[in-house]
Amino acid sequence: MDEGQRSRRPGGRSARVGAQVHQAVTDLIGERGYGNFTVGEVAARAGVADSSVYRRWGNLENLLTDVALTRLNTRSPMPDTGSLAGDLHAYAAAVAREITGPDGLLVVRLAVALSSSGPQGLRARDGIRDERTRQLRAMLDRAGERGEDAPDALDVLDHIMAPLYIRVLFGLELTPDYVDGLVDRLLRPRP
Amino acid sequence: MDEGQRSRRPGGRSARVGAQVHQAVTDLIGERGYGNFTVGEVAARAGVADSSVYRRWGNLENLLTDVALTRLNTRSPMPDTGSLAGDLHAYAAAVAREITGPDGLLVVRLAVALSSSGPQGLRARDGIRDERTRQLRAMLDRAGERGEDAPDALDVLDHIMAPLYIRVLFGLELTPDYVDGLVDRLLRPRP
Repeated sequence: MDEGQRSRRPGGRSARVGAQVHQAVTDLIGERGYGNFTVGEVAARAGVADSSVYRRWGNLENLLTDVALTRLNTRSPMPDTGSLAGDLHAYAAAVAREITGPDGLLVVRLAVALSSSGPQGLRARDGIRDERTRQLRAMLDRAGERGEDAPDALDVLDHIMAPLYIRVLFGLELTPDYVDGLVDRLLRPRP
Repeated sequence: MDEGQRSRRPGGRSARVGAQVHQAVTDLIGERGYGNFTVGEVAARAGVADSSVYRRWGNLENLLTDVALTRLNTRSPMPDTGSLAGDLHAYAAAVAREITGPDGLLVVRLAVALSSSGPQGLRARDGIRDERTRQLRAMLDRAGERGEDAPDALDVLDHIMAPLYIRVLFGLELTPDYVDGLVDRLLRPRP
């Protein structure tokens, strides 16, 4: 994901190639699942040269990590509402909206695939997890600095994100009340 | 999964064919992912006739449902220890052991694949979920009948099983203390 030393105009050729390559990856994951396509096939689908893909991303795992993180950071960015409850409610609602939408399970499908594709796959999966955990922790740290009693990032993973993902994966509905209830339950003082 | 009207000796030819076919499915999911093999390939791998597979399971989705439920029921059966806490601790420990072992993510991989393979896939996925939920509910109902204050089956899904699955999927360790802690947290009285 080293973008090299060339300068790029936003919206210029480089951004266009990036968007085309990302879309090609998303389409190919949807059609064939991960592990059933190559960098060459991504390039062909995106209408760019193989060398453009290799130069920018290095290998398929780096490209997949970039697609997943771009998607997560765009569709469910960490909010900054000024309160812990506000942030967690906004974040949970964004995640729920994203994973019940088109290609909503892309990140789970990618994690499943990367988990069974050797050391490079595992490193890519860990990279996605660590980057999102880092962002989540920064949001919770802000709450701590305001004097709020914030949960640990892994508690948010366990008791807000995990149930959302597993319910969608097994075909159960996510109502707004249910999503809000997960946040309220995590924030409720415990004996 | 209608086994027909023929009588079968346990351990006889039918049981052997069943075991061979189940193993062939597990191997093919591991090698290619779901959706990338046919009933014919399962039969060839298992060394049985296609017609034996069709006669017994009808289609690939029924066969996959049978493999998943057989695996779940064998490796993490619902315990009956005489207390709610005992049952949930034993169940959570069995699930954790199973999903961190070889092919541990098979059921998640299957759910991911079935979720994106049309109405028959969705029905198969829902069948697996409903059967396991029914078993879990029976375990919790026994606790209720003993006068214990049992959580809902979906609370167990959300706050015990979902974190276990998501942590394994994203490469985080499951320690016995962590697994026991999920159960204790769910059972702790709430204000």
